[in-house]
Amino acid sequence: MKHEYGTVTTAIVKQLRKIAGEPNVLVDRERMEGYSHDETSVEQYAAMPEVVVTPVTTSQVAQIMKLADTHRIPVTPRGAGSGLSGGAIPIYGGIVLSVEKMNSIVEIDEANLTVTAQAGIVTNELNNRLKELGLFFAGYPMSLETCMLGGNIAENAGGGKAIKYGVTGRYILGMEVVTPQGEILNLGGKNTKDVSGYDLKQLYIGSEGTLGVITEATIKLLGLPKTSSDLLVTFTTPQQAISVVPVLMKQGIIPTSIEFMDYLSTRISCDYLNESLPIEGVGALLLIEIDGIDEAVVEQQLIQVGDLCMEQGAIEVYIAEDANNRERVWSVRRAIAEAIKVYSPIQSLEDIVVPIGSIPKVIPFLDKLSKEHDVLIPCYGHAGDGNLHATVIKNPEFTMEHWLEVEPKILGELYEFIIGELGGKISGEHGIGLKRREFFKEFTSPIEYRVMEQIKRALDPNGIMNPGKILQ
Amino acid sequence: MKHEYGTVTTAIVKQLRKIAGEPNVLVDRERMEGYSHDETSVEQYAAMPEVVVTPVTTSQVAQIMKLADTHRIPVTPRGAGSGLSGGAIPIYGGIVLSVEKMNSIVEIDEANLTVTAQAGIVTNELNNRLKELGLFFAGYPMSLETCMLGGNIAENAGGGKAIKYGVTGRYILGMEVVTPQGEILNLGGKNTKDVSGYDLKQLYIGSEGTLGVITEATIKLLGLPKTSSDLLVTFTTPQQAISVVPVLMKQGIIPTSIEFMDYLSTRISCDYLNESLPIEGVGALLLIEIDGIDEAVVEQQLIQVGDLCMEQGAIEVYIAEDANNRERVWSVRRAIAEAIKVYSPIQSLEDIVVPIGSIPKVIPFLDKLSKEHDVLIPCYGHAGDGNLHATVIKNPEFTMEHWLEVEPKILGELYEFIIGELGGKISGEHGIGLKRREFFKEFTSPIEYRVMEQIKRALDPNGIMNPGKILQ
Repeated sequence: MKHEYGTVTTAIVKQLRKIAGEPNVLVDRERMEGYSHDETSVEQYAAMPEVVVTPVTTSQVAQIMKLADTHRIPVTPRGAGSGLSGGAIPIYGGIVLSVEKMNSIVEIDEANLTVTAQAGIVTNELNNRLKELGLFFAGYPMSLETCMLGGNIAENAGGGKAIKYGVTGRYILGMEVVTPQGEILNLGGKNTKDVSGYDLKQLYIGSEGTLGVITEATIKLLGLPKTSSDLLVTFTTPQQAISVVPVLMKQGIIPTSIEFMDYLSTRISCDYLNESLPIEGVGALLLIEIDGIDEAVVEQQLIQVGDLCMEQGAIEVYIAEDANNRERVWSVRRAIAEAIKVYSPIQSLEDIVVPIGSIPKVIPFLDKLSKEHDVLIPCYGHAGDGNLHATVIKNPEFTMEHWLEVEPKILGELYEFIIGELGGKISGEHGIGLKRREFFKEFTSPIEYRVMEQIKRALDPNGIMNPGKILQ
Repeated sequence: MKHEYGTVTTAIVKQLRKIAGEPNVLVDRERMEGYSHDETSVEQYAAMPEVVVTPVTTSQVAQIMKLADTHRIPVTPRGAGSGLSGGAIPIYGGIVLSVEKMNSIVEIDEANLTVTAQAGIVTNELNNRLKELGLFFAGYPMSLETCMLGGNIAENAGGGKAIKYGVTGRYILGMEVVTPQGEILNLGGKNTKDVSGYDLKQLYIGSEGTLGVITEATIKLLGLPKTSSDLLVTFTTPQQAISVVPVLMKQGIIPTSIEFMDYLSTRISCDYLNESLPIEGVGALLLIEIDGIDEAVVEQQLIQVGDLCMEQGAIEVYIAEDANNRERVWSVRRAIAEAIKVYSPIQSLEDIVVPIGSIPKVIPFLDKLSKEHDVLIPCYGHAGDGNLHATVIKNPEFTMEHWLEVEPKILGELYEFIIGELGGKISGEHGIGLKRREFFKEFTSPIEYRVMEQIKRALDPNGIMNPGKILQ
């Protein structure tokens, strides 16, 4: 699906300024630099936009898209740029359309338990506001301190609470989307059920900005759990820790989180944060959260889970009940990706997902890859979902040339095993974006790939909407 | 989107026999009669197929689709025919492709908590098998004694437990779909998270057989709740009963079900089943189920909910704890649609859904419609989801001519109020199908409708896949 693209001329910049206002159009290279990459670490993925626009209304977004479609200018929608697959990188130049200034809460509707907010609101800001009302949005991406709602929806973000609460998409009742042609679609509403026609919302959710620009969403809220607590469980080997997960999942207890962190990930994050956790002699840890409406029940489930971990060979079970201790442990977990990036900027943060019963098979394979290719592969992630962030790190002794040769080889072998042997998938929550598009094509059946192309072509015939992401 | 269709010639019938085997191809009018309608009551929606095929393998389905696409023969996929919007009616003749003989459980995978089954399995048969293992599929359509998995998915069926468990789509991890061109798509797998490309599964879910034939699905299972109990609560007026719902939903307790039944619906169903419930002097009832893992907690929640109902003016709260009593009450609820159809075959069973905070506004409007147009409108449904099955019944004194004039008028006024005033939707779980397609077009924004048409055209350019449903 190759397209010819137009250039952002000074006339187009002038029109963009007319649409969005002078201060919302950037062409200065220095100021645009921050929009040339996301949190995907490797430099090779950076690309400069020709212009950055930060519209403040949906109508402006619509006008920008109309202009872009007329002149065949590629448009890359962007939220916080906290993505991990290169989805917000303007690889064909053109316009970066950042929703960062569309960051209002439009309405909190307590009668219907919904909130309507613009795409640029930061997840944690939203949840802090809702917390005051005893409510919460159950999406919980690890980057919640920076990531924005629009990006969460575009990526169908997962995160730390997906076992119990599911991922972002489950909570999106309504959505405002601007089409590649600059038309404004208002989908859904505040209804908890709706089968009136094709579920377009679910198509835009997770489409990584390739089908339209999400400008606003109405989210279903839940009442904050009345009580919750965390267990930190240490194991001698990663294999022991991860093998507990399928056993635990069959107990009928549905924890809020089962996070896995191997020794290396934990140590790197602790060092980065200047934090300490009891990791001497420990091969891996599980961080298990349970919430509920009744303290006694949660307490009882914690004990049950703790006992089960001990039966499965845990070294120690720590209960983190007070808020301070819990935040300490969770901050170590949340900081891992960032810490590993500082530790070794040249790396590949993976996002494989496997059926929960197959989780124990992943660790030995990572060990094998690590030994065979002489690289470190720290591993952590949402074990309860089968979603593991194995991170392949460049051996400092490798030349860059050797790394660029060995990295795709490792990933190819990893995907072959995860998909071919275990029936897993290439991405559980980070998306395909730019980073995984070649592998995605390789490991997707030609028929499935073609259906995706047909949809893309039908909704964006000029191919201007975040081109080169997901599909090539 | 008008298409020219081919006719089912004797040569084509011969080829179908070659593909699916002699006994799986019906052309006999008498035997085909059962395939000319679904559970939509009105005769006006019936249409005879030219041929009925009951393939036994996915490969046969694929060959049938290839043949049909080549000769431009419309294909109407069909499960149990228990649909309520005319989705399975072959309005352009052609082939009815019934999956009724593809009714096997392919695999129960206890390690991954999934079941893979063919589209023709009856929902209750599936759940009975799973029950033996302490597991269940949380989809719970009211027609579970007859409806088939493929139809549940095609309609994204809701039902009685959606407040707590969500609707069918939430549980579909993997899916086999045959495209209109006869290609076999294998989507997803057994992974609980997956953002690898567009979520095609979610597009096929709820697409009412207009984009492809669902032949198999892999379903996420849950452990059976360890304990559950029901409350039957009586109120003097429907308005009192329904007004309890939003109050109840804000308590932080998430019941499994909150079913609403007005006096007329309940009486008609009781009479039909020769059953008795305490409905003297009662205007409406709520049937509230709570389940959980801890008996004491469920008990406590039941008391809390019961007290709240009394505070809101309930006449009486009955606890139905033993299995026999519970089944009696639920069978009354489940039989309402059937009972009303026997009571008055000429009717329109509606499926409106509104934001939960707006539920109390629906009943007075139904009363107004009922008085103004001199018709009965018994009402019942999944009040906890805002999804109400108001059923407009022909006044026996009306001529058929008058009814056919007044019925669309009533529905038009109803939709105008539900959608225009309350932000609701035309269908919460029954689908658009044939029955609501005109109103769907009228009450959907032209842009949203066009995007749906673009998707339909992209995936089914010859328009052979269940034509005339959802879109006109």
